[in-house]
Order: sequence, then C-alpha cells, then structure tokens
Amino acid sequence: GFANIDHHRALRTGFPEVIWGPGKTPEQIAQIMQAMRDRNASFPGNWGAVVMATRIEAEVYDRIREIIPQAIYYSTAKICALENDGFMKPRPGTIGLLSAGTADLPVAEEAAITAELCGFRVQRLWDVGVAGIHRLLSNVQVLTQADVLIVVAGMEGALPSVVAGLADCPVIAVPTSVGYGASFNGMSALLTMLNSCAIGIGVVNIDNGFGAAMLAGQILRTAAKIDKE
Amino acid sequence: GFANIDHHRALRTGFPEVIWGPGKTPEQIAQIMQAMRDRNASFPGNWGAVVMATRIEAEVYDRIREIIPQAIYYSTAKICALENDGFMKPRPGTIGLLSAGTADLPVAEEAAITAELCGFRVQRLWDVGVAGIHRLLSNVQVLTQADVLIVVAGMEGALPSVVAGLADCPVIAVPTSVGYGASFNGMSALLTMLNSCAIGIGVVNIDNGFGAAMLAGQILRTAAKIDKE
Amino acid sequence: GFANIDHHRALRTGFPEVIWGPGKTPEQIAQIMQAMRDRNASFPGNWGAVVMATRIEAEVYDRIREIIPQAIYYSTAKICALENDGFMKPRPGTIGLLSAGTADLPVAEEAAITAELCGFRVQRLWDVGVAGIHRLLSNVQVLTQADVLIVVAGMEGALPSVVAGLADCPVIAVPTSVGYGASFNGMSALLTMLNSCAIGIGVVNIDNGFGAAMLAGQILRTAAKIDKE
Amino acid sequence: GFANIDHHRALRTGFPEVIWGPGKTPEQIAQIMQAMRDRNASFPGNWGAVVMATRIEAEVYDRIREIIPQAIYYSTAKICALENDGFMKPRPGTIGLLSAGTADLPVAEEAAITAELCGFRVQRLWDVGVAGIHRLLSNVQVLTQADVLIVVAGMEGALPSVVAGLADCPVIAVPTSVGYGASFNGMSALLTMLNSCAIGIGVVNIDNGFGAAMLAGQILRTAAKIDKE
Amino acid sequence: GFANIDHHRALRTGFPEVIWGPGKTPEQIAQIMQAMRDRNASFPGNWGAVVMATRIEAEVYDRIREIIPQAIYYSTAKICALENDGFMKPRPGTIGLLSAGTADLPVAEEAAITAELCGFRVQRLWDVGVAGIHRLLSNVQVLTQADVLIVVAGMEGALPSVVAGLADCPVIAVPTSVGYGASFNGMSALLTMLNSCAIGIGVVNIDNGFGAAMLAGQILRTAAKIDKE
Amino acid sequence: GFANIDHHRALRTGFPEVIWGPGKTPEQIAQIMQAMRDRNASFPGNWGAVVMATRIEAEVYDRIREIIPQAIYYSTAKICALENDGFMKPRPGTIGLLSAGTADLPVAEEAAITAELCGFRVQRLWDVGVAGIHRLLSNVQVLTQADVLIVVAGMEGALPSVVAGLADCPVIAVPTSVGYGASFNGMSALLTMLNSCAIGIGVVNIDNGFGAAMLAGQILRTAAKIDKE
Amino acid sequence: GFANIDHHRALRTGFPEVIWGPGKTPEQIAQIMQAMRDRNASFPGNWGAVVMATRIEAEVYDRIREIIPQAIYYSTAKICALENDGFMKPRPGTIGLLSAGTADLPVAEEAAITAELCGFRVQRLWDVGVAGIHRLLSNVQVLTQADVLIVVAGMEGALPSVVAGLADCPVIAVPTSVGYGASFNGMSALLTMLNSCAIGIGVVNIDNGFGAAMLAGQILRTAAKIDKE
Amino acid sequence: GFANIDHHRALRTGFPEVIWGPGKTPEQIAQIMQAMRDRNASFPGNWGAVVMATRIEAEVYDRIREIIPQAIYYSTAKICALENDGFMKPRPGTIGLLSAGTADLPVAEEAAITAELCGFRVQRLWDVGVAGIHRLLSNVQVLTQADVLIVVAGMEGALPSVVAGLADCPVIAVPTSVGYGASFNGMSALLTMLNSCAIGIGVVNIDNGFGAAMLAGQILRTAAKIDKE
Ligand SMILES: Nc1ncnc2c1ncn2[C@@H]1O[C@H](COP(=O)(O)O)[C@@H](O)[C@H]1O
Ligand SMILES: Nc1ncnc2c1ncn2[C@@H]1O[C@H](COP(=O)(O)O)[C@@H](O)[C@H]1O
Ligand SMILES: Nc1ncnc2c1ncn2[C@@H]1O[C@H](COP(=O)(O)O)[C@@H](O)[C@H]1O
Ligand SMILES: Nc1ncnc2c1ncn2[C@@H]1O[C@H](COP(=O)(O)O)[C@@H](O)[C@H]1O
Ligand SMILES: [Mg+2]
Ligand SMILES: [Mg+2]
Ligand SMILES: [Mg+2]
Ligand SMILES: [Mg+2]
Ligand SMILES: [Mg+2]
Ligand SMILES: [Mg+2]
Ligand SMILES: [Mg+2]
Ligand SMILES: [Mg+2]
Repeated sequence: GFANIDHHRALRTGFPEVIWGPGKTPEQIAQIMQAMRDRNASFPGNWGAVVMATRIEAEVYDRIREIIPQAIYYSTAKICALENDGFMKPRPGTIGLLSAGTADLPVAEEAAITAELCGFRVQRLWDVGVAGIHRLLSNVQVLTQADVLIVVAGMEGALPSVVAGLADCPVIAVPTSVGYGASFNGMSALLTMLNSCAIGIGVVNIDNGFGAAMLAGQILRTAAKIDKE
Repeated sequence: GFANIDHHRALRTGFPEVIWGPGKTPEQIAQIMQAMRDRNASFPGNWGAVVMATRIEAEVYDRIREIIPQAIYYSTAKICALENDGFMKPRPGTIGLLSAGTADLPVAEEAAITAELCGFRVQRLWDVGVAGIHRLLSNVQVLTQADVLIVVAGMEGALPSVVAGLADCPVIAVPTSVGYGASFNGMSALLTMLNSCAIGIGVVNIDNGFGAAMLAGQILRTAAKIDKE
Repeated sequence: GFANIDHHRALRTGFPEVIWGPGKTPEQIAQIMQAMRDRNASFPGNWGAVVMATRIEAEVYDRIREIIPQAIYYSTAKICALENDGFMKPRPGTIGLLSAGTADLPVAEEAAITAELCGFRVQRLWDVGVAGIHRLLSNVQVLTQADVLIVVAGMEGALPSVVAGLADCPVIAVPTSVGYGASFNGMSALLTMLNSCAIGIGVVNIDNGFGAAMLAGQILRTAAKIDKE
Repeated sequence: GFANIDHHRALRTGFPEVIWGPGKTPEQIAQIMQAMRDRNASFPGNWGAVVMATRIEAEVYDRIREIIPQAIYYSTAKICALENDGFMKPRPGTIGLLSAGTADLPVAEEAAITAELCGFRVQRLWDVGVAGIHRLLSNVQVLTQADVLIVVAGMEGALPSVVAGLADCPVIAVPTSVGYGASFNGMSALLTMLNSCAIGIGVVNIDNGFGAAMLAGQILRTAAKIDKE
Repeated sequence: GFANIDHHRALRTGFPEVIWGPGKTPEQIAQIMQAMRDRNASFPGNWGAVVMATRIEAEVYDRIREIIPQAIYYSTAKICALENDGFMKPRPGTIGLLSAGTADLPVAEEAAITAELCGFRVQRLWDVGVAGIHRLLSNVQVLTQADVLIVVAGMEGALPSVVAGLADCPVIAVPTSVGYGASFNGMSALLTMLNSCAIGIGVVNIDNGFGAAMLAGQILRTAAKIDKE
Repeated sequence: GFANIDHHRALRTGFPEVIWGPGKTPEQIAQIMQAMRDRNASFPGNWGAVVMATRIEAEVYDRIREIIPQAIYYSTAKICALENDGFMKPRPGTIGLLSAGTADLPVAEEAAITAELCGFRVQRLWDVGVAGIHRLLSNVQVLTQADVLIVVAGMEGALPSVVAGLADCPVIAVPTSVGYGASFNGMSALLTMLNSCAIGIGVVNIDNGFGAAMLAGQILRTAAKIDKE
Repeated sequence: GFANIDHHRALRTGFPEVIWGPGKTPEQIAQIMQAMRDRNASFPGNWGAVVMATRIEAEVYDRIREIIPQAIYYSTAKICALENDGFMKPRPGTIGLLSAGTADLPVAEEAAITAELCGFRVQRLWDVGVAGIHRLLSNVQVLTQADVLIVVAGMEGALPSVVAGLADCPVIAVPTSVGYGASFNGMSALLTMLNSCAIGIGVVNIDNGFGAAMLAGQILRTAAKIDKE
Repeated sequence: GFANIDHHRALRTGFPEVIWGPGKTPEQIAQIMQAMRDRNASFPGNWGAVVMATRIEAEVYDRIREIIPQAIYYSTAKICALENDGFMKPRPGTIGLLSAGTADLPVAEEAAITAELCGFRVQRLWDVGVAGIHRLLSNVQVLTQADVLIVVAGMEGALPSVVAGLADCPVIAVPTSVGYGASFNGMSALLTMLNSCAIGIGVVNIDNGFGAAMLAGQILRTAAKIDKE
C-alpha cells in the first residue's frame, strides 16, 4: 500500500506514529486512522491509544467524519482524533504553554491539544509578547508551576529568551510563520530562538506545535522514569 | 584627487562628512583630516567643527599621530578625532545607550563617542541582555530620562523590543555581528529588530554604531528646531 | 480570551496598541475595537483616543461596519478606525512623506493615515523615484519644511539615500515589496536602505508603513517634550 | 564595569552564568572568574559552585593560569574552570552523548565537560555517523540506558533523526560547522535537524555544545523535581 | 514554430527529448507529441520510441486525449505518454526505488513511470524514512538486488545517506519539496543529500523524479555497453 | 599543459583571452604571458596585441618582472601587462567612468586600465555617491560627453540608477564588495543595480571592473562597425 | 494625482517612460496612456512617440480597449500599446534575440515587441538551449549578423556564456523565472549569467525583457551617434 | 579511541573508508592509516587495498612521512596514500575527466587520483570551459570514449550541461568554489548544475572531487557486475 505505518513506534519511542495530513486525501487519512485503531485494540497500552492526524482542514474533517463518525475535531489546532477510553488518563507533569501574539494561536493550540490527547496537563497563557513585558511579569506563576515550558512566537521571536531567563525548567521554543516582510515566513523568529543567550532552550521547526508537544512529552516521560538520587 | 570631500554636508544636513577608515592608508586619512580641519577654520559653525575617522586600528592611529600630533584616539570605539574648542559644547537632549552583552561594547562605544564628539550627553548602561531581564528592569530610570535611546545587541537581538515596550521615546536599534553559528554575522539580530512588535524602532546596519549616533543626533536637532504647539 | 490587550501601552509608550488585522476574523476585530473604545472612555487622554486596525481588506471592513456602524475605512491604506472627538487635535511637527513609485502608494498611505489619525500634519510627495531625479529636486521644499521624513520605496530602494543627503532632519526609510525577480519581495530595497552612505536614516520592516508613522510620532513627541538648551 | 554579572541566575534558573570567552582579554576573564568564585563562597548551593568559561584558546588559558593558578583546562572542549569541592557531586540521570564524525569532537566535548562540571554522568559514543549505520546499531544500549541524549553531527546532520527513531527519551540535536561547500558552515546540518520526521528532538545553535549540556541539565533537574503520579 | 525539437537527441545521448508540460497549452503539447511520434516512425530504434510529457495535470490530459485518443495517463506521476509496440521491451538492469514518506510519492512515481516507459525494471519500496529505520533494515534485499538505486526524500532528506552506507551500487538522491517551515521548499533535503558522508551518491534537482530516472537509465545503458575486463 | 589558451578568441570575439591571476603561481602567469605574446607576434592585429593579467598582488608582480623585465604594473588596478607598439592606438568612443566612494577605486581602476590598454579613452569621475548628489549634478558634462558609462558603487549601490536617469547612453553597473554588515560582500549593491527603475543598465559581477571594461569595449566596437541609417 | 509622469525622459535619456502595469487599475493605465499620448502630440520627436504598458493581462487589456479603442495588444509579450504614424520608422542596427526554451517565450517576446515598437529590427531564434548545442551552432549567422544580442534563458541559464564566446558584439543576458526546485525563481539563472567566464555580457533583472530591449536600444542609439575614428 | 573506523565498508559498499584530513593532527592521520593497512593485510581483497587521506596540506604530509616512510603524496590533489601491490590492478571502464578552467585543477586532480588509486583508467581534458566552446568540440572523442564522465567547473558552472547534451553516458557534475562575487563560493555553479536541462547528470558537493570519483567507481562496478540482456 501507499503507507507503511510504523506500528512499533509506541513501543520503541513511547509515542505512536501520528498522521501528517497535507498531501493525503480524506479517504487515505480515514483508512490509516482505522488501521491504527485496529492495531491499538490488540496493543492496548496507554501510549498506543492515541490516534490523531494534524494539519486537517475543516472540509477534510467533514469528509473523514462521514467515514468514521466518532472522529472529533479541534478547529483552531486543526487536529482530528479518535477518542479512546484510555488516552485521557492523566500523566505526571504540567506543561506551561505561552504564546506571544493572538496570531500564533493555531500553532500554540496544535501543541496544546497534542499534549492533552497524550494525557498531559497544559496551562495556557496567551498574548504575552515582549513588547508589553508586564503581561508576562504579572503571570510568572505559570512559569514557576510548570515542569516544562513551550513558548510559541512569530515576528521577532524574542519571548523564549525572556522566559528562559526567568524559568527554572526546560523551554521548548516554537517559531511561527506569523509576520511579514523580513520575517521571511518564520526564519527571523527561528534564528532569534537559536541564538538565544538564555540557557535551557531547545528549538523545533517553524509552526511545529506538534513536535514541541512530543518533545515536552518525552521530557515528562523521562522525568517519570528516572531514579531520583 | 582620490577623495571628493562633501564639505557642504554640514550646512546641508547638519553633520559634516566623517571619514570611513577601511581601505585607506594612514597617510590618506591624515591628509583628509587636515583638509577638513582647514575647511572648518573658514566655516567655524558648531557642527562643522568635528573632524573624525571611524574603524581606525591602533597601528593606523600610531601612524596618523606622527603626521598630526594633536589627533586623539578612543581605543574601544576605534575612533580617531581632532579636538576643537567648539565641538564639545553641550547640546540639548540626552541619549540613553544600552548594550546587551559585553562583547557588544566596541559597537556601543562607537555610537557613544560619536555622539559625545558631536556634543550630546550620553548615559551608558552595559550588559543588560534579556536573558536576565531584571538587570534592565532595575535600571528603568535610564529609559525614562532619555530623549532618544540607542540599543545595541548581537546574538538574538531581542533587547530593543523589550526596551521599546517600556520606553516613551524613539529607539534606535543596532544589531551587532557578535555571535556564532546561526547568528550569521549579525543577520539574526538584524531580522529580530526589523520584525519587532514594539513600536517606535528604527534600525541601522549591523555594527553601525556611527550611524545610530548620527540618527540620534538628527532626532535631537529636529527637537531643538521644532515649533512646539 | 484569545487577546490580552495591552491597555497600559498608551500611558507607557505614548501610543495605544493598534490591531493587526491578518489572521483575525471580522468579529474578533470588532470585539477588540469595542473593548479598546470602552477602555478609552475611562482614560480620555489624547493618545489613548485612537482605535484603529491595519491590513483590513474591504470585505472585512464591510462586516465590521455591520457590527460597529461608526467604523470608517481608508481603502488605499487598508485601515479601519473609530472616529473620536479628541483624536484629530493637531500636534506639533510636520511629517514629509515621499514615495518612489505609484505602486508604493498602499504602504505610503498606511503611514500617512496612521500619522494623521494620531494628529500629525503630513505633506505627501508621490512618485519621485531616483530614475527621474529632477522630480525630487524640483520639490525640495517638502524636505526643508519637514521635521521628520518618511521615504517609501520598492525595487532598488535608493530614494532614502538621496533624500537623507539633502535633508536636515531624521529620515525613516520604508522598503516595499514592490518589484519582481531579484527584488526578492522587498529584500533588495531593505538592504539598500540599511547600507546607505547617507546619515540620519532609520529603517523599518518591509511594507511597514504603520511602524514608520509610529517612529515619526515618537520623534515628534520627544521633540515636543525636550528642554531646549 | 564592563560586565554586569547575573549572580542571581543560579537561584532563578538553576544554573549560574557561564563566561563566553571570545572578545574578552585573559585578564577580563580571570577577573570575572574571581568575582564569580567570591560570590559563590557566600551562596554555597550546589549549582552556584561551577565557575567556567567556554571557547578559551590554549594561549588564553596560559595567561589565565598565571593569574589564577588553580584554573584547569580541558583542551578538546576549550573550557577553563575553577575546581570546587562541591561541584562534582553526582546528580541523578545519565546523558548519552553521540558524535557522528571525529571532526565533531570539539563540540561534543564542550557538551560533555560542561555536563560533567555540573555533576551529570555522561556516556560517550563517538564516530557513529549514519553512513555506517551498524556502528550505531551495535551500540543501542547507550540509547536505552540514557535519560536524555545529546547528538552532535556536522555535514548532512542525519544522526539525530535516526537516534530519535530508536530512543525512548528526549534528544538534543547539535549541528556542527564541520563540512565544506554546501554545508554552509553548519546550516545544512541545522536544517536537517529542524526538519526531522522523528519526534522528541530539540535543536540548539550550530556548534553550541555548551547550550546542549545546559538543556540536558534542565531536563534532568525537572526530572528530579517532578512529582511522580 | 515555437518549439525547436531536438530530434537527434536519442541518437546522440541515448534518450529522446521529453516534453516539459508547465507553461504549454494542451494543444501545444499534443502537437509536439504528434511531431515526435511521426519522427519516431522513421527512426524506429528502441530508445526513440518513447513519447512522453511530464507535469501534466489531469485537466490538461483530458484535453490532450481529445486530440490524441491513444494518449495514456499516470495520475500520481502526472505523466502523459503515447504507447508504442517497441518501447516496453525489457532492458538489462534493475532500479531499486525508495521513498521516505507517503507524501513523496508523486516524485517517486514520476521516476518510476519514466524508467518503466524506457524499458527498465523498477522495484518500489515506499515509506521507509529514517525515523523508523527498521522498515529499511527489514527490506535490505531491495538494496542488494538493485543495480542502481533512486532514493526520494523530503523534510530532512537523510534516507540516501543511510541507504548509500548499506548499498553496493550507485545511489541517485532526489530531494522533494515535501515539508514546511525550515524545509524551505526542499532546500533542506537538497543540502542534506549534497553533504552526505556516504559515498556513491549523485544528487538531482528538487522534485526531479524524471531526471533521476534518466540518470539511472544512462548508468544502466553504460553498464550494457561496457567491455568487462 | 595546465592551460589551454583560447588563442582564437581575439579573432572570434574581438578581445583576446586575459589571464585571471588568483590560484596561479607567478611562474605560471609569466609563462602564459610569454606564450600569448609569442602568439600575438604572428597575428599582429590590433586587438590581439594586449597581453594582461588581473588581480595581481604587488609581490606576484615582483616575481613576474624577474622573468619578464618589460612587464609593467598598475598598482591600484592590480593589473600586470606587456606593452606593445600597437595596443595604445586610440579607438573611437569615450567611456565615462564614475565611482561612488573612494573605497571603490581598485575596482574602478581595474575597469579604467583595462579599457585604456585596449585603446579606449576614459574620463574618470571619482567619489560622487548619491549621499551628496550635488557632486554628481555639478559634473553632468561627464555624462553627456560619454558614449558609454561605467558606474562603480558599493554599499547601497544607488549611483547607477541616478546616472541612468540623467544619461543618454548605455550604463554598465559594477557593484563592489565595499561595505560591511548587511552589504553581504556586495550582494546589496548587486541587487540594487538589478532592480533599478531606470532604463539602459546592464550589470556585471561584484568587483568585476575588468568585465565592465570588456562590455564597454564591445559596445564601442559595435558602434564602430554598425551601418548608420 | 497618483502618478507623476516623467515627460522629459525621452528628451533626457532617449526613451519615454513606459507604464508598469502591475498594481494599477485598467482605468489608471488608460488615463496615463492618454496623458502620454497628448503630451507626445506636442513633442512629436521620434522616440517620444511610443506609448506602451507592460505586464498587462488579457482582461486588463479588454477594459483598456473599451476606454481607448485604438489600443493594441501583444498577447505573448503582455504589452499594450498605442500605435502612431512615426513610431515604426526603422532605426539602424539589428538585435539578435535568442531564447533557450519555449517556456522563456513570454519574456523573450516582451523584449522583442518593446524593441520593435521603438523601431529596431529584431531577428528571433527560439529554443536553442545548451543541452542541444547543435541547434545554436547551426544558426550562428544570427549571431554574426546582429549588432547586439539579447539572450533569454531560465533553469541553468548557460546560454549567454556560450553565445558570448561565439559572438563579436555586446550580449544582454536575461534570466527568467522558468524552472523549479533549486532554480529559486530565476536566481540560479541570474547567478550563472553574472558569473560567466565569457566577456561582453551585461545582465538585467529576472524576467526583465523590457529592460533588455531598452539597454539594446541605448547601445544602438550610441552606435548611431558615435563619431567613427 | 577518537576514531571508529568502518572496516566493513569495503565489503558492504565496495569501497573502504577514506580519511578526511581537516581537523585531524598528522599523528592521528598516520595512526588511522596504519590501522587500515594492518586491517587490509588480513582482508586482502582488491578494493580494501586502498589506504588514502584527502585534503592533506604539504606540511601535514611531511610529518606523516616521518612516521610512515612509504606514504606518497599527490600535491595538486592534496592526497596522501599508501602504495600496495594489489591496488593499481586495472579495472574495466574509462572515466573521462573534464575541467572548465585551470583554477579548477585541484578539485579535478582530487577526482583523478582517487579514481586511479582505485584502479580506474582516467582520461583528462583540462581548461575547456564554455566561453570557448570550440575547445570542447574539437575534443569530443574524450566524450565518446568514456564510460562515465566527471565534469568539474566553477564560476558559472555551465560545462556539464553542454557535455551531457553531447555525451551518451552518465555525467557527474562537480561544482567548485572557484570564482568571486556572486559565485558565492561555488553556490552559483552548484545551482547551475542542479538546474541543467540536459539529462543524465548527477551532482556532488562543491569541491568534492573525491565524491565524484567514488560515484564514478560505483557506476563502473555496477556495470561490471550487471547481467547483459
Ligand atoms: N563607521 C561608519 N559606518 C557607516 N558609515 C560611515 C562610517 N564612518 C564614516 N561613514 C560614512 O562614510 C562616508 C565616507 O566614505 P568615504 O568617501 O569612503 O570616506 C561618509 O558619508 C560617512 O558618513
Ligand atoms: N559556548 C557558549 N555558547 C553559547 N552561549 C554561551 C557559551 N558560553 C557562555 N555562554 C553564555 O554567554 C553569556 C555570557 O556572555 P557575556 O556577558 O558576554 O560573558 C551567558 O549568558 C552564558 O550563558
Ligand atoms: N516590464 C518592466 N520591467 C521593468 N521596469 C518597467 C517595466 N515596465 C515599465 N517599467 C519601468 O517602470 C517605471 C514606471 O513605473 P510606474 O511609475 O509605477 O508606472 C518606468 O520607469 C519604466 O521604465
Ligand atoms: N575529500 C572528501 N570529501 C568528502 N568526504 C570525504 C573526503 N575524504 C574522506 N571523506 C569521507 O569522510 C569520512 C571519514 O570522515 P572521518 O571519520 O572524519 O575521518 C569517510 O566516510 C569518507 O568517505
Ligand atoms: Mg497581542
Ligand atoms: Mg553578560
Ligand atoms: Mg512612476
Ligand atoms: Mg569517521
Ligand atoms: Mg510514513
Ligand atoms: Mg567619499
Ligand atoms: Mg525545447
Ligand atoms: Mg582557461
């Protein structure tokens, strides 16, 4: 067939394969989702329970739902998922999730929903960009209460630097393609984040909210496994 | 001759031409400085009094001083100048000058010395990068006391955004080539500054401390000329 | 909610937050405009009076007007604003506003309308690109009468250099994405302006007419506040 | 003074400020090291105990040692540090550290020494690039035993993708400037890592071994603090 | 006329000219196909028999078929061809054709169909990207049975490096524009492939499945002609 | 041998091959110069008479002169040439040659000396950059008297646009690598020149004074051959 | 008004201003064309007679013709012009115009029609790219008969180098945006042309057929004016 | 140890690992060469016999020879090798090796020597760039006699396109960093080769003569193994 699903991934890396929507027909997506759900039925471990697809437009979802009526949709995040008894079981750790501007919300929600579908607690803090630094400073408790932070920003992308200078946990920086002109579709924010003087920052691809959630998940899973001194 | 000095510039734009050192021999630089000083003698207006050259290495200065013993040198700023009775006369307005890291000092001092040679008051605040935001927040009086701010930063270049969000005056952002890897010799900091969400920021070329001082000078001169309501 | 309006901005920086249209629904924009207007009612200071949104397409405006009938629209500038008794009160200082070609008009008008909504006097001079330099030379009075200049140019972006060589006040350079081929969506004009040999130039992002007006406003406000010698 | 040391950093973020060597004289570096050591004496917490400087050439170290005889040097890593009774105390968690080629060793050792100076256990695996995949496959125990992985690679930078597909913990990817031609000083490896199809990868700047160790440290510290379900 | 068909190409280089669809009307394409078929009738050699056009959208094909009813269409590959008694005659050599992800299929099929229309045997292996390396390792027989390999990959583009490290024959690497953000429309994958540490890799343009097949064909034709020791 | 001199070039294109110095030893350069001179002796046509090498450092010349005592050197232009009775014969047409700054002189002189060695009359006008436009406007006779113009500029590279708007003949634009920061080694000036709104401009490579002279020469030769109406 | 037509341009530079279509409404274009035609009536010199607009889509032309019925349209070149008794008067000199591929025709025709509307003789040679060099070699008479050559090529852009090596007159190289992948919208062809080893080449912007014709026109006009020795 | 030699590579891919010199000390290189030679002694197969290192400067070789007296050096190619009875045994197939300019020789010789050390016959043709196409056309027998061609070119990089249009075998294109200005250290030549309209071209990294020889070797080995129809 056209797809070679990596069914062992959940066992090997802790997370199952997630379907990337672009370039696939709704029928293909539905077919892969069903194959994954069937497979999950036989490997009912916690992590394998999530079946989800990202970058799904509303019209694509409408067609998927005709084939799989239980499919649900998160419109800002553009995620389509199959609910499952096991997969909302709460896991240890809190993800603090910040966005710099309102235009960054689709990427931030892609991260938030992905993390929540995997069972993590997410605390959101929207629209706290550095041009009005008091909005961040008056919400520092979000930083101190988190075990890992995801910081989403477009345009100049400076928020992760300021956050990492204040926080006491790993910071995952997500540049977005929000901006115009010399933002060069997110490259400006990406470079800003890579060049940060603050420590404890890992960067993911432009607009990659999904990848940020996966990395946060791996960090929290490692934390849950590690032997304390 | 090889140079076509723009002697009218001081009359036309308010500032005399300044000699750009790279690619000129010490002898050529000294010769142009003398021509400018002689010219100034006949146009003794305030602004025309400054004779200076930028990007002068210490060895170049040593040779210039053999030819023009009165030439003085600012080593961090790499500026060589001819002192003059008139040119330190204080002018209205204060320039607040911030740098993000200690490695940005040469560029910041190029701006500071240029401004001071033109008669402006400069208040320096060094090493207040956004990774330790409290260093800036505990010095906000530098921001509120300034009539115009020059903010110098390399690496991620985020400082001008934070400053402009706090300040109530124009901010001149100077990216520096400090950094490595994805800083791409200052391009990262430059893009950050151009994409700032904060308002009231004008950007100059990478490492262009001189240009920042000139722009600050034009702003303060306009302020001195303008008819208030 | 999705937006975290920076209501203090007017008090802190002299200008209120302005709504950036792209990526927001007409309903969201109208809602934010109303929240800002209500807020302004309680802080009736001069600057806080402006409520405006940029990059608004005509169809978006049509929908906003259904919700807020008093909303007005500037079609070339693509700005939507709420009129207010206080906000057209003239302020000291004149902005000279030049464009290089007729295709640069939308960006130039974004700057002009923003400045006028903030109470500044704007003198426009359109289509005076350097390929026909006499068009500029026969209008030098626009340069000499201005307290600050905004120069908008696409393609080769050379106009600010020539203007700054003739003018005696700060020049704000706005590159536009007008052009094709090696203009690389405005990058050519942006680089030209950053590399200018003329002094007194601050550069803003590609197509950022709004930012240029804000910077001009900060310069004129500083001028109005400064103590003359 | 020229430096504004962020002494609170250890309290705020868990790690003290580290001195970046380039552009500083040996005397300046020694002076900052001494100031930090003195400060540490009064805040004897575990993390604050580390005093180190990165990107130190051998000749620079020779001069530092004349001023501070106890200063030690790690020549491949180009790190200079002050030993301290407390700072080698082992901390929970193991960092697996892989390099793709022998030319990547300086960056990999910068990460290794930084992590070890902070008290972490590091397991090294050198020269296991993807062109000879069996070298990695025959050492998978390094992957399974680690709590966090740092993967250093230049040229095509493909190693982190393969590792993250096999590992069950967070992967920190460090592109290096090793290569020539279309490696564009590490940009090729950087882009490869940002575009990885594998999940759980965070990327740091080109050649930033130090930053990778800091991020690994933050991940392991979070692990030590987190409340397990 | 508008086209100057290179009829001698088959004689000179072993392959006839192939029509590049973009920018041509269906009528123009049909007209060129007919001219080529007529020409082939008089030069009935094996290679000259192929008449094909690439990058043909379905609607363009519909119109071509109205003019040339025998025209056939390969929808994933977007190739339109004229069948011919001679042109499917099997030729010596097997092409192993791998793709990293399902989104790379259109490019991989462009390569596959082109090669098959020229008479080569193609063995396909889809969706074996490096993030799940076992999918490749459990299919190594495709590598060992091939005389030449074509490896198609987008995003991080790492597959050809791993394959070339395992294979004992030439590898043709085809970067695709699949990806987003820092994939920069395939540039990331292209750079990865050019910088590979593995030996025996030749790279073609982004999305150039056709070119990869032509190069594979030239390699197999050389093999068929060469004098063995 | 290592070089395959294109002796027919003078006959075919009007100009002989010129030696490019970088990467060749002084001995190799001298050897090629002698081979060309000997060849010229048998084809004594006018154009073939020039034997010259570009990008020759002073030390390289010193060594060449030991081998060929008659070799002469133009130090600013870094050109080494063999004089010849025929080759200074004046040819019809005048080249106007302008430079924007004094730092552009080496490139401008490379163009000037190349043109003069080929027998053309060159009128120089140095240091007339657009930041002081009056320097150009007070010398317009250089523009009106020329049959073809070469305009050399670094940094913002705006001079050719202004010149072409005033001139009535072809303009050859030569970007130089003079500048720093966002000049990106001449790319900024190159893009400016390619995007010029003025008509009649042809651009050559960065720092390619030699190529500009060759193009000017071809234009004047065409003029000398053409049949007038 | 919105446009500031440079009516003197014909007198000053030999060619009148030409209207650039993009971003203008059909009504604006028609209005400018009429203003130019009226102006031409009073300055009936030869060159001033041309009134034309480039980059005009068919639908825009349809609307212009409703306003100005005499307007004619060249559909491949996308040029709209007003015919005039004087403007087709033949001028001395022949332009040889070559294109590398059929997809380059729109740009090549923009050059051809512009030149013909200005009264020059154009000899076209289409589809002679370097991959089938015999197509060029069997048409060398086009090269030898021309007084100036315009060579249009996309993709690898190698044709001007080969042509300039064979021709004995100036070559104007026009890169086109034809291509895909690593052609980067014409940048590849542009760089190829700028780096040519052949002499006598001037380059214009990507897709700038208009500019190439204007430069060819300036060359032929200079040729017609020059005094032969 | 610091190196993890891939001793199986010869068995797996047909070629042994080759040492990349940059960043290694002469002692390290000598040590790895000895380890490889010893290993070869026990696996005396043909291919394993080659022990070589690339990018070796003359001074590095001098030191290696002190340790391994039998080491030989190819100065233009900068290759150091250990001779061996078996490794010059001729293999089937001829490599035609062309260079565009004399400055490309070091890269071309790296390819030539590598191929010859592996036992292949190499026919060299130097300095046949497209600006003097007759030099190539008068040597076409090199093209027709080769089983595979390697074409090395810098600057505009057009030679492989022309060659592939004439040849009837695979062409390996090697861009070099020869050039200046807009050659961008070989990127221009690289893009040209990737965008070629000719078929049958595979591209390797800039200056990668070694990689080109390895690919040619793999092609000829496949040819020797393949079953003819
Ligand atoms: N550090 C500097 N950065 C940018 N421009 C400068 C600098 N120093 C001098 N200049 C400008 O360089 C020009 C002089 O260039 P030149 O004719 O080469 O001496 C003047 O227009 C100065 O305004
Ligand atoms: N090798 C390194 N790479 C990146 N950042 C570093 C490195 N070494 C030290 N730093 C950071 O550089 C900053 C100190 O810069 P400075 O004030 O110039 O000494 C601190 O914030 C460190 O965390
Ligand atoms: N196709 C074209 N490419 C480049 N420049 C053009 C083109 N058509 C017109 N122009 C130039 O564009 C300018 C007119 O721009 P505008 O004032 O916007 O109409 C004139 O200077 C023309 O020389
Ligand atoms: N000149 C060269 N260009 C590209 N790769 C090379 C070159 N010389 C050796 N190599 C490769 O570099 C690898 C060895 O790198 P290292 O482990 O650092 O010695 C081997 O895989 C070789 O195939
Ligand atoms: Mg906001
Ligand atoms: Mg610091
Ligand atoms: Mg105009
Ligand atoms: Mg190795
Ligand atoms: Mg897949
Ligand atoms: Mg000057
Ligand atoms: Mg064709
Ligand atoms: Mg040569």
